[in-house]
Amino acid sequence: MQFTATQIALLINGKLEGNADATVATFGKIEEAGAGQLSFLANPKYEEYLYNTNASVIIVNDSLELRQPVSATLIRVPDAYTAFATLLSKYQELKTQQLAGIQQPSYIAPTAVTGDNIFVGAFVYIGEKAVIGNNVKLFPGVVLGDNVKVGDNTILHAGVKIYVDCVIGKNVTIHAGTVVGSDGFGYAPQPDGSYQKVPQIGNVVIEDFVEIGANTTIDRATIGSTIIKKGVKLDNLIQIAHNVEVGSNTVIAAQAGVSGSTKLGKNVLIGGQVGIVGHLSIADGTKINAQSGVTKSVKEPNKALNGSPAHDYSASLRLQSMTRNLPELEKRVKELEKLVEQLLAGRGNG
Amino acid sequence: MQFTATQIALLINGKLEGNADATVATFGKIEEAGAGQLSFLANPKYEEYLYNTNASVIIVNDSLELRQPVSATLIRVPDAYTAFATLLSKYQELKTQQLAGIQQPSYIAPTAVTGDNIFVGAFVYIGEKAVIGNNVKLFPGVVLGDNVKVGDNTILHAGVKIYVDCVIGKNVTIHAGTVVGSDGFGYAPQPDGSYQKVPQIGNVVIEDFVEIGANTTIDRATIGSTIIKKGVKLDNLIQIAHNVEVGSNTVIAAQAGVSGSTKLGKNVLIGGQVGIVGHLSIADGTKINAQSGVTKSVKEPNKALNGSPAHDYSASLRLQSMTRNLPELEKRVKELEKLVEQLLAGRGNG
Amino acid sequence: MQFTATQIALLINGKLEGNADATVATFGKIEEAGAGQLSFLANPKYEEYLYNTNASVIIVNDSLELRQPVSATLIRVPDAYTAFATLLSKYQELKTQQLAGIQQPSYIAPTAVTGDNIFVGAFVYIGEKAVIGNNVKLFPGVVLGDNVKVGDNTILHAGVKIYVDCVIGKNVTIHAGTVVGSDGFGYAPQPDGSYQKVPQIGNVVIEDFVEIGANTTIDRATIGSTIIKKGVKLDNLIQIAHNVEVGSNTVIAAQAGVSGSTKLGKNVLIGGQVGIVGHLSIADGTKINAQSGVTKSVKEPNKALNGSPAHDYSASLRLQSMTRNLPELEKRVKELEKLVEQLLAGRGNG
Repeated sequence: MQFTATQIALLINGKLEGNADATVATFGKIEEAGAGQLSFLANPKYEEYLYNTNASVIIVNDSLELRQPVSATLIRVPDAYTAFATLLSKYQELKTQQLAGIQQPSYIAPTAVTGDNIFVGAFVYIGEKAVIGNNVKLFPGVVLGDNVKVGDNTILHAGVKIYVDCVIGKNVTIHAGTVVGSDGFGYAPQPDGSYQKVPQIGNVVIEDFVEIGANTTIDRATIGSTIIKKGVKLDNLIQIAHNVEVGSNTVIAAQAGVSGSTKLGKNVLIGGQVGIVGHLSIADGTKINAQSGVTKSVKEPNKALNGSPAHDYSASLRLQSMTRNLPELEKRVKELEKLVEQLLAGRGNG
Repeated sequence: MQFTATQIALLINGKLEGNADATVATFGKIEEAGAGQLSFLANPKYEEYLYNTNASVIIVNDSLELRQPVSATLIRVPDAYTAFATLLSKYQELKTQQLAGIQQPSYIAPTAVTGDNIFVGAFVYIGEKAVIGNNVKLFPGVVLGDNVKVGDNTILHAGVKIYVDCVIGKNVTIHAGTVVGSDGFGYAPQPDGSYQKVPQIGNVVIEDFVEIGANTTIDRATIGSTIIKKGVKLDNLIQIAHNVEVGSNTVIAAQAGVSGSTKLGKNVLIGGQVGIVGHLSIADGTKINAQSGVTKSVKEPNKALNGSPAHDYSASLRLQSMTRNLPELEKRVKELEKLVEQLLAGRGNG
Repeated sequence: MQFTATQIALLINGKLEGNADATVATFGKIEEAGAGQLSFLANPKYEEYLYNTNASVIIVNDSLELRQPVSATLIRVPDAYTAFATLLSKYQELKTQQLAGIQQPSYIAPTAVTGDNIFVGAFVYIGEKAVIGNNVKLFPGVVLGDNVKVGDNTILHAGVKIYVDCVIGKNVTIHAGTVVGSDGFGYAPQPDGSYQKVPQIGNVVIEDFVEIGANTTIDRATIGSTIIKKGVKLDNLIQIAHNVEVGSNTVIAAQAGVSGSTKLGKNVLIGGQVGIVGHLSIADGTKINAQSGVTKSVKEPNKALNGSPAHDYSASLRLQSMTRNLPELEKRVKELEKLVEQLLAGRGNG
């Protein structure tokens, strides 16, 4: 798709400077963009690129004062970054809406119910009594077990697997290879050293506006539901164990893991590779630094944690610096030992 | 499926109290269960819920003494939790046994041999000379390479991939997205800084009664076999490298990793996000705390480890607490320095 | 396939000792190999096995002096390990080259362009305008989005998913379940506590001779490209975030993660479960020990790092040992306190 500078200025309500007929087909970073690309300048640090870029059209802040002539067409808006992001979103939406139809071969069980304007890629599997909302996009190789529900406008990328009885809300996006509803990890030790499986008959409920990355795993509850609340954002390769509850708008970075039955509050921020043990309760707004290991519940909201085991963020930084100074401390103790020995010897002499 | 209270009491050999015709179709936690649900009360902590629950039937301990009237039908057994777990297991088994037949389209190579009463979901791939036992359930999108063997009663969930020549035992369950038999990570450094691949021509052998979670990876041996012994339980997103041997009934939690050629003993317990370096030998019954990094072999059985690098669990906790007290120790040293200075000054004056 | 000792000696230019007609069909470790297997002896530590093995043919070093009679046929070469590895490589190559043809059902979009001698497994999906080079092998269940490019001789194992617009070089191998091109993890916080997605419209570029393990995830760039340079080796379950650049011949072990926009130099070595924060620059030849957490850029090449937060490797080992000696240091301080108290008391008395 090609757009003229005029069309773009209209879309983002901007003011044109330069050739109104310049056309762009793709997006690029200002330091790399070539002819036919649209770029933006928001951070003054990159202003020098403005005067050398080959981009055809550049969105800039109203406040920008040019220090040299610019060959590209400029579009001025109050906030260049936001305008650019809005354009990208509209472009993505347009492309996704174009996906429609049922590719063959695919497998849709006779008792499944499907909404309007859905896309079913080749090799998609939809189980018995599954219910698929309107505008749902199922990329190739998605597997939906029996009784799975998928809400309107939800996008499941290639090879996502949803086990039986799980419920996915509206406007959810799940990236390729992610597994929702695998069995929780529960075994009862037996006298002979072996383990008996505890059946996992609950499900997973993912609420609206959740986004989940690639190859993440979310286990079904033993009984009841593992719940991912509205607006949660999960990155790639995350482990969410059985009966966990993730509060709304909580954000978890890649490779973090949350153990069984732990409840995370709202707007919690969890760094990459964090581990949280089971049966804890983490207060709203808690911030957990990357690679931390959380072993205790957090009751007070909006605290920052660090370390393994995790504790107060600032105290942990002080401890880290103190630990780095251990050789210094040991030297001071050695010096004291020498002085005290001298004092003792002196007293003996005295 | 619907069951009456009478049917359930018969199944678990329990004693009925209340309406014998109450029917249930699903299971629920006592604090959440509604009409038509079966629940249980084992932990006295939850007794209050017994008097308010809407569950239709509740399994309770023989020893329970009611303090208020209960509207649900009760079934009394010696151990409510075990009786409930038994019921769940029977229910799960029943559902799995119902799966049978070959869905289309699927791909079964002409030289593959398949047992009785198997389920082959749509988009399943079975390679040349593969041998599939009786009652095996292959969910949609499973890929079995050439010469793969799968034992009786084994369940492979959606999108499990087993590479050529690997051997899966009987009564094994592998969850969605797990990969068995990918190449071990072996490269020989070359003088020009590049790496030459060391071919990985071994396989993976998974013995009977193993259960493996979702999106876990188990690499094939360079030569010989990577071996997962009888009764092992692996959680999600675990990495098992080439030529590793995991001893029987060993349990590994999510996101842990075991490096090449390491041998884990029997009944080892490994916490989440643990890392174990290559070529080690870990004694039977070793317990490794979450996020630990094991860098040395463990020779004495039944020891507990913690930390990165890991060492004795109790010593590690003492060190952690001592480290937390570093600011205190530094204060004591400062105080000593002041006193010694005074003493030195005093001596000078003396 | 069966080979005689004579054929093998010819292939690796070796000198035969013993039965020239002995035949082998598979490979085995010298301590385990049986009749009909080919093995090698390179490490003198294993020499004892030479005299008891049932292997039919064994490759040994020219320099080996037999201390007992050997029943197997020997093939002498200057370097037994290299000769054996070469044989394995030729064997693997032979097996891969035999894969050819388009299995059914598979889905190849009408506008896709495919090269000569490719293998397309059943349930493979090739999107619109995708371009597939010569000798490419796509195992069952691979999904290639629209406009994906795959270079000559590249092998994508079962269930690999490549999102739209990504570019895979020549002679690349990607193992099962790996995802290339999922959205980067970028969200703009909103005043109401929710997050707005930042569209991710870049791609991933994987250069020639890269090998990637199983269930790894590589996110597409926000704008521009996430780049994996020539000769890089990535293990299983690794997270590479958006706009990351991995320098040529860099090697990353399993379960490590690299956050957004970080640039890794050439020939960097990264241990398992390492985490690297975003927007850093790591110099060529940096070595990062397993489980480290890198929080700062590394400017000087060829440094070794350890710890979380990571710092100089040797200093970190000294600190670890010093931390282990904290109880000892505390004792010394206690002893000093006692002595100083005595000195103070003595002065008081004096």
